[in-house]
Amino acid sequence: MADFTYTLETRDGAARAGVFTTPHGDVPTPMFMPVGTLGTVKGVAMEEVGELKARMVLANTYHLYLRPGHELVRQLGGLHAFMRWDGPILTDSGGFQVFSLADIRQVQDEGVVFKSHIDGSSHTFTPESVMDIQRTLGADVVMALDECPPGGSDHAHTREANRRTLAWLHRCQARFDELEQRGEYPTQTLFPIVQGNIYDDLRREHARQVRDAGNWQGIAIGGLSVGEAKPDMWRTLELLDGELPADRPRYLMGVGYPDDLLESIARGCDLFDCVAPTRNARHGTAWTSGGGQVNLKASRFREDTRPVDPDCDCTTCARYTRAYLRHLVVSAEMLAFRLISIHNLRFLVRLVEDARRHIVDGSFHSWSRDWLERYRSGDG
Amino acid sequence: MADFTYTLETRDGAARAGVFTTPHGDVPTPMFMPVGTLGTVKGVAMEEVGELKARMVLANTYHLYLRPGHELVRQLGGLHAFMRWDGPILTDSGGFQVFSLADIRQVQDEGVVFKSHIDGSSHTFTPESVMDIQRTLGADVVMALDECPPGGSDHAHTREANRRTLAWLHRCQARFDELEQRGEYPTQTLFPIVQGNIYDDLRREHARQVRDAGNWQGIAIGGLSVGEAKPDMWRTLELLDGELPADRPRYLMGVGYPDDLLESIARGCDLFDCVAPTRNARHGTAWTSGGGQVNLKASRFREDTRPVDPDCDCTTCARYTRAYLRHLVVSAEMLAFRLISIHNLRFLVRLVEDARRHIVDGSFHSWSRDWLERYRSGDG
Repeated sequence: MADFTYTLETRDGAARAGVFTTPHGDVPTPMFMPVGTLGTVKGVAMEEVGELKARMVLANTYHLYLRPGHELVRQLGGLHAFMRWDGPILTDSGGFQVFSLADIRQVQDEGVVFKSHIDGSSHTFTPESVMDIQRTLGADVVMALDECPPGGSDHAHTREANRRTLAWLHRCQARFDELEQRGEYPTQTLFPIVQGNIYDDLRREHARQVRDAGNWQGIAIGGLSVGEAKPDMWRTLELLDGELPADRPRYLMGVGYPDDLLESIARGCDLFDCVAPTRNARHGTAWTSGGGQVNLKASRFREDTRPVDPDCDCTTCARYTRAYLRHLVVSAEMLAFRLISIHNLRFLVRLVEDARRHIVDGSFHSWSRDWLERYRSGDG
Repeated sequence: MADFTYTLETRDGAARAGVFTTPHGDVPTPMFMPVGTLGTVKGVAMEEVGELKARMVLANTYHLYLRPGHELVRQLGGLHAFMRWDGPILTDSGGFQVFSLADIRQVQDEGVVFKSHIDGSSHTFTPESVMDIQRTLGADVVMALDECPPGGSDHAHTREANRRTLAWLHRCQARFDELEQRGEYPTQTLFPIVQGNIYDDLRREHARQVRDAGNWQGIAIGGLSVGEAKPDMWRTLELLDGELPADRPRYLMGVGYPDDLLESIARGCDLFDCVAPTRNARHGTAWTSGGGQVNLKASRFREDTRPVDPDCDCTTCARYTRAYLRHLVVSAEMLAFRLISIHNLRFLVRLVEDARRHIVDGSFHSWSRDWLERYRSGDG
């Protein structure tokens, strides 16, 4: 599978700088992947996603399966052509969305039965079907179906979910390879997902089982940022850093917020995704390097002619004032969500770019400490 | 007032090609002005409005007065700086919005008392106050306060509205000139509005009264496209073509749809505005030169890999298929409204560009007839 390679260029403590090579281009890591749920990063055109230097994006299998349907996406040229993105794409397995969005569900070893959140129609995801769907969609990286127990799940429940996730991984792999033999699909790679919640023994065991189950080109860490305490998340990442192969990218699913991103990079994670940049933007919330998260609705921005973040190089900060953005947010104008989304996405991409530069020159940890202190100072 | 001039370059029948010069640049006419109600053309960035070659835009006094307030706009550098548009801007008087949007109203010779559609607070617009507000906002062209009787109004009601509109015009002019003397405001010009519904005698009388009331740099035609039959609208425009000065631009308020635009250009109108391009886009409706208005939600576009309009040179048609746009519309994705708005706006701007070229070379009427026939053929 020389189409996918990972080169670990350097480490600074546990932090890693590398390059993940895919058939649709190289991804310098650490990298944040914007989420294009339905084949669009909400409110933002894909050429804007490219301009803010995101190098890889994510799309949601659950959503695209329901609407417009994976077969139609394939018929229209595959996911890259469909969403007008020539860079690497990762699709999730759909499992997480089934557990969080679908109306009713039944989880058995065979798979998950759920009702669509759109029309209540009944569907089943199995390890095999999510491979079929993801191969049909055509993303570069496809994800194994996993069971992600909710935050606060007990040891027994988590252990059972780990067992099922591993069994499903074997079936995903078998189906993925079977489809590969047909020669009808684009070049893709399958990432497994390590679960185990915040239980050290289960995380260690699952990491080893998953690692040994195949020659993966990358491994995902699931089941974090689901409500657990931050120290538990950091301890789990530190544990996994010692268990996961150093020469493969680690994709930490569903993270993050700027501070979580830096804390996770410090603990050896390479790829990230999160809907926070666009979801926050829809609520008028923007990130600033000098004072953390601010809500632009606040009346204190009424006459503020500064850009959202004076340090930012995004097109929103180059062109628009806080006062104008506040006016758009207060007026619920669509343009607000677009402009703030662009800022928030660029904020994270610039953050991982800066992190990478400091990892390469060996100054990551002092830089990150200073950055977080300023970010957390909260003076807007 | 050499800051505003109109050069009538040529006529082809009643159709006119000219150039309207303003302090913020030249506007080739005929021209369609996108509507930026609250200082933003809904969903579209002003640099995109520039890219689609709109040369002048409109903003709504009523909306900006209520939110964020004209004084704040001035404090933030005036309307051009506020909405990031260096080209010419026209603000309406707010009267039409008061009559169509505000909750409760009282119309007297003094002015209009209304309640905000946002919070129900009580406000009064007088000829003087709308001059104060528009001079404070700082658009190039400001509009006189008028009373626009609803479609179907009888002769007596229309006559009374004409009388009041003329009285208000004199007061607008006096206040405009008084503010001019203060030397605190940018260079602006005041356009009067001719009313009279579809009554030939009232239209003729009002046109003459308005025309003789001042040395206007342009004159607006109000009270059309408010529900009257199309033949009445065309007859009224033909009548006004003979009454209005040939050496001033005629701004036909609230028009248009593509076919109405061509019919009005054919009858001597020069400037146009309408929310249809963006409002239709929010419902998934797009214009096509080969088949009129289509709703992209229709299932027949599910697998349609053509652009919205194969003849169109907009960025949406260059990049996206009908199938993808349909998916976005069906999924209520924000990007849909933006992409279709850009197409619809460019569709109208290209239409007036084409119309102008054909006026200049004397082929407007045969071209327009063919264009309308194809547009109305309705095969999508």
